Amino acid sequence: MSDIKSYIENNKDRFINELIELLKIPSVSADPAFNQDVLNTSEAVKESLEKAGCDHVEICETPGYPIVYGEKIIDPSLPTVLVYGHYDVQPADPLHLWDSPAFEPVIKKTELHPEGAIFARGACDDKGQMYMHVKALEYMTSTGNLPCNVKFMIEGEEEVGSESLGWFVKRNQEKLANDVILISDTGMISNTQPSITTGLRGLSYVEVEVTGPNRDLHSGLYGGAVANPINVLTKMIASLHDENNHITIPGFYDKVEELTRAERDEMAKAPFSLEAYKEALDIDDVYGEKGYTTNERNSIRPTLDVNGIWGGYTGEGAKTVIASKAYAKISMRLVPNQDWEEITQLFAKHFESIAPASVKVKVTPHHGGQGYVTPINSIGYQAASKAYQDTFGVTPIPQRSGGSIPIVSLFEDELKSKTILMGFGLDSDAIHSPNEHFGIFNYLKGIETIPLFYKYFTELSK
Amino acid sequence: MSDIKSYIENNKDRFINELIELLKIPSVSADPAFNQDVLNTSEAVKESLEKAGCDHVEICETPGYPIVYGEKIIDPSLPTVLVYGHYDVQPADPLHLWDSPAFEPVIKKTELHPEGAIFARGACDDKGQMYMHVKALEYMTSTGNLPCNVKFMIEGEEEVGSESLGWFVKRNQEKLANDVILISDTGMISNTQPSITTGLRGLSYVEVEVTGPNRDLHSGLYGGAVANPINVLTKMIASLHDENNHITIPGFYDKVEELTRAERDEMAKAPFSLEAYKEALDIDDVYGEKGYTTNERNSIRPTLDVNGIWGGYTGEGAKTVIASKAYAKISMRLVPNQDWEEITQLFAKHFESIAPASVKVKVTPHHGGQGYVTPINSIGYQAASKAYQDTFGVTPIPQRSGGSIPIVSLFEDELKSKTILMGFGLDSDAIHSPNEHFGIFNYLKGIETIPLFYKYFTELSK
Repeated sequence: MSDIKSYIENNKDRFINELIELLKIPSVSADPAFNQDVLNTSEAVKESLEKAGCDHVEICETPGYPIVYGEKIIDPSLPTVLVYGHYDVQPADPLHLWDSPAFEPVIKKTELHPEGAIFARGACDDKGQMYMHVKALEYMTSTGNLPCNVKFMIEGEEEVGSESLGWFVKRNQEKLANDVILISDTGMISNTQPSITTGLRGLSYVEVEVTGPNRDLHSGLYGGAVANPINVLTKMIASLHDENNHITIPGFYDKVEELTRAERDEMAKAPFSLEAYKEALDIDDVYGEKGYTTNERNSIRPTLDVNGIWGGYTGEGAKTVIASKAYAKISMRLVPNQDWEEITQLFAKHFESIAPASVKVKVTPHHGGQGYVTPINSIGYQAASKAYQDTFGVTPIPQRSGGSIPIVSLFEDELKSKTILMGFGLDSDAIHSPNEHFGIFNYLKGIETIPLFYKYFTELSK
Repeated sequence: MSDIKSYIENNKDRFINELIELLKIPSVSADPAFNQDVLNTSEAVKESLEKAGCDHVEICETPGYPIVYGEKIIDPSLPTVLVYGHYDVQPADPLHLWDSPAFEPVIKKTELHPEGAIFARGACDDKGQMYMHVKALEYMTSTGNLPCNVKFMIEGEEEVGSESLGWFVKRNQEKLANDVILISDTGMISNTQPSITTGLRGLSYVEVEVTGPNRDLHSGLYGGAVANPINVLTKMIASLHDENNHITIPGFYDKVEELTRAERDEMAKAPFSLEAYKEALDIDDVYGEKGYTTNERNSIRPTLDVNGIWGGYTGEGAKTVIASKAYAKISMRLVPNQDWEEITQLFAKHFESIAPASVKVKVTPHHGGQGYVTPINSIGYQAASKAYQDTFGVTPIPQRSGGSIPIVSLFEDELKSKTILMGFGLDSDAIHSPNEHFGIFNYLKGIETIPLFYKYFTELSK
């Protein structure tokens, strides 16, 4: 694989332009208005896999958005790598905060990306990282360097809970049979210090509705005498954290995995500057659970965040109204051993129990998934670690991520194989935010590193 | 004035149709999109006053929406009644909760309005009640029954704080000189038990903005480690009431007028059914300040209500985001002696003081006004009381209203005259809510009662 650097050098403009074309399609799975765009994206991914050298590619229908499946089997006796990624993206709003339109990709230099970064929704999460694998395959097939079998499974509902993926995996265990699952949908510490994500948080996402009076009321005539659903909702949400920012839902922490002092000390070795962190976010102080560091708070500890809240008059000017209803979208990040369905039930039970008699409460679970931990002594981890060492010249640090890829634990249950999370994004890439971007350096480095994973994984499997 | 009943009987269809035409114009002052409609409404009001017999009518420009001024001076030595009303209306949203379009008036019978009610935004607040005065003038001038001088001042910014009205009144004290101010922008207990509003609450309306990180963040990567502005806002708002629903802003209650036991006992005599109240709103329980009855909570006690709240992702589906900003519109109803500007300052000072270091807070005052009390021994009150007795056959009950008409105290300061609040609406008319309506009975009864006020006020002034 000595020729990979030159192959990338000779083709990088095309690699970048192909990704830009893919990023132009607004495949927002959360919003039905983009339905056709999501479908068009699955077609584009199918074609790219055919061009990259898959023998067989198909668009698999599901109850929701289709899953693009592709494979190249060179020898059934060799190991098989299953690549997972997603072609859908987060909604782009708030649109006015984007410096350039979310679906009109532009390349701009930044402090962290002196070689330029592609700015667009999905640039990093996950079109850019998913497409690295397509181009890595192209290199391996076109240069006779593919050392094992490969399967691709690219879905279109990751940003809305991957429901159809679960449905698909349960029905296609044989087709998806593999020795290791490879995913690039996470980040690394920096472009000089790569890291491999060994832990993911689980997720429980719910929507709550508080109903007071049966109609909007004049706040003068009824104010003070009737429960205001917005005031009540704020009290209920506020009560979900105590003064130490511990979550107050009974039983919430019962199964939380407590790390040993040694493990926490090991974590603390990862380079981190609180000052730089605060400066990057323009905040005077961090805020979180008492007794834990910032890196612990967003990785090994569960959380509860309101992702959206609305009720009453939110237009221009002033309206003196008491709304009939108030709403909030609330998500909880969970750690290994916390069962997301159990937590969802605990939340619903508790939230309903704290509602005053003067309102009615409805809790609607959106979706969720379990947390996950990858053993660093596995062949997959070792292969990934050696690949990064070759391309970055440094040993990658194993890291717990605060994010969630709910389907990883599903894969383990249904396909009986471990997942390796080779992420090439940076926390500063603003995924899920305005001005999401992905460094050209990271994109090309990913394409360079992935084939080496195949090589080492095949060798270590012998 | 013995012929008034027959005059109304002969003209009632026209009276109703004229009002319906006025209600078709969406004069929403809070939303710039309706700018031209608001202006068109002022023209329509001008024409109606000319037709009703005013000698002189003009549209007076202001820094905001114009004020329609009209007058008929029959003899400078006679008393002068100044009629105030407003031609602007509240926003109609949420539109989907209207059974018929807000600006396509329809007449429907209801349990409380067996003779039918006009359903439309502004039907009661205040186009319908304002127009009663126009038609009452028409009767008095066309039948030679006008016993005194009359002036009209109809504004277009009542629903957004009446700022231009204050500007106008301060500059036109001579033009607006009067002996009593007459307003129909309040309600009465029922169609069989009229009441006259003797007290109004003041108002302080503010908007708050809480800013956390400088951009929306991925709730997985940052959740638990960074202050979530929505969570923080809910905690801050929740803390504004204690467990007894007392408002916790330091100094908030310092100047609150405490009624005597006797006064509260007198209030308690007003017919009121808690069961019917709860049933009408479809609530299992009321909710408010400990130690006060429902009628006290919404009239003699100050309140703090969130009128609107928004932040984060509020679209379809789920987005795992930590918003950069969260907002709320908050209004406080004030009682006599509480100064709205002082309360606004107390709120801002307190709200900023309770913000954690991890967020930035901005408080923007919208508008406000003072509370007010009308003495029931005044000539104006006596004249109104006799007028209701004649037309309803019962003595009206003096009542404190929870609503606010901020300009009433301004009138007293600038024009040195008392205001009489002759309201003909019902609490169930759903003002500021979907399906606002105004009873045909109430509309015609108002037209019948108003001329008698002129008669008695002139006689009692001799």
